[in-house]
Amino acid sequence: MVNTLIRVSYDGTNYGGFQLQKNAPTIQEALERALAIVYKEPVRVSGAGRTDAGVHARGQAAGFQAPFSIQSSQLPFALNALLPADIVVTAARVVRPGFHPRFEARRKVYSYTLDRSDYPQVMRRLYSLHLPGPFSLGPVEEAARILEGEQDFRAFTARVNPVKSTRRTLYRVSVEKRKEDLVVFIFEGNGFLYRMARLISGSLIRVGQEKIGPAAVTRALAGTDFSGVGPTAPAHALCLERVVYEDL
Amino acid sequence: MVNTLIRVSYDGTNYGGFQLQKNAPTIQEALERALAIVYKEPVRVSGAGRTDAGVHARGQAAGFQAPFSIQSSQLPFALNALLPADIVVTAARVVRPGFHPRFEARRKVYSYTLDRSDYPQVMRRLYSLHLPGPFSLGPVEEAARILEGEQDFRAFTARVNPVKSTRRTLYRVSVEKRKEDLVVFIFEGNGFLYRMARLISGSLIRVGQEKIGPAAVTRALAGTDFSGVGPTAPAHALCLERVVYEDL
Repeated sequence: MVNTLIRVSYDGTNYGGFQLQKNAPTIQEALERALAIVYKEPVRVSGAGRTDAGVHARGQAAGFQAPFSIQSSQLPFALNALLPADIVVTAARVVRPGFHPRFEARRKVYSYTLDRSDYPQVMRRLYSLHLPGPFSLGPVEEAARILEGEQDFRAFTARVNPVKSTRRTLYRVSVEKRKEDLVVFIFEGNGFLYRMARLISGSLIRVGQEKIGPAAVTRALAGTDFSGVGPTAPAHALCLERVVYEDL
Repeated sequence: MVNTLIRVSYDGTNYGGFQLQKNAPTIQEALERALAIVYKEPVRVSGAGRTDAGVHARGQAAGFQAPFSIQSSQLPFALNALLPADIVVTAARVVRPGFHPRFEARRKVYSYTLDRSDYPQVMRRLYSLHLPGPFSLGPVEEAARILEGEQDFRAFTARVNPVKSTRRTLYRVSVEKRKEDLVVFIFEGNGFLYRMARLISGSLIRVGQEKIGPAAVTRALAGTDFSGVGPTAPAHALCLERVVYEDL
């Protein structure tokens, strides 16, 4: 078997998330269907992360055991010819046996995009949250600094498994003002808990609207007061930008 | 009656164009439906231009006779609440009686967007033409210069009405290399013939691919050889950016 890693971008609008499920089309299902045609037998795909329903990706990674070898430069073309237009494989490479796309992911980068124009930009409506009105970047920057570093993000997840650690490191939380009235949050971390990026985005949005202060984020991280958490910001403005591996 | 001009942006993906027709949903139809609710009687809308099926707009203009006056700052909110998410009214103003959005339009600006990345950018797939492979900007710039000015664009339209003039002025044809592997053609003119922007885009694409030279554009304009015309480039990469009026 040839252990293979692919890079995948997708528009999550019409999917129930990355991971296979019964009641909605998923990215994994579409990939497995295309791979089964290419390799003429069932192929099981593992994603580097499970994006929620409606979340997009520019740089998701996924792995599978291929029954035979196909030239890495040819595989994306073969798969893209079989995949729907909203899923695009952008690279493929053979990785060492035992390499697992989730366990070996060192860092992930997510973006959360706000459309700050007075009226929603139609061509961005599927990929950004329309948020007109007052928004102060200063307090958001301050909250971003508080979120950086290794800490317990238990407050910023929707499911806590008592056995597993909720400590994660956010190497970077940045707030970028871009042209065309966009504000983008960038989260770079060694791992993200379930709903973490969206709960943090929800907090940062309330900080920007001055509904809560940056100190509310400090108190949430300390576990003393959870009023600064969330709400879970809408999925469609979140995008998995990149999955980084040690030596790839 | 209150003669009213609105600015409209739309994602044309799911529409049969701007103008009312029997067999497909149109922008005009959606606007008239929303206006009929706001004004409680039928309202007829005239667009500044008739965009083709699948063509987008950031700055379309449309006019109508309103039975009564609504504050200009309130009208877009009222209409947007009633319109589908892919049509957004961004401004409204009262104009003098007799003002017609099409006849008084002085200039229109269209963009045509090429996605030059190796694999299509999924989040841009609805708004750009994926065109990987060699593409030379030099010859395209040269062809752009040839297209500028007042000339007979008869070669670059799909329907010629013998009574009407096919002379138009292109004030600006520019080719902009933008970040994220985009190349955008900008056309600014006093009027556009049926399919003109898409036929010119098709020619510029072939020039960039060096399938024809810029001189083929000169010959097409001169009417001596039409091999440099088109093909009609796909609708979904075209966007009506702006309609400019004398004193608005």
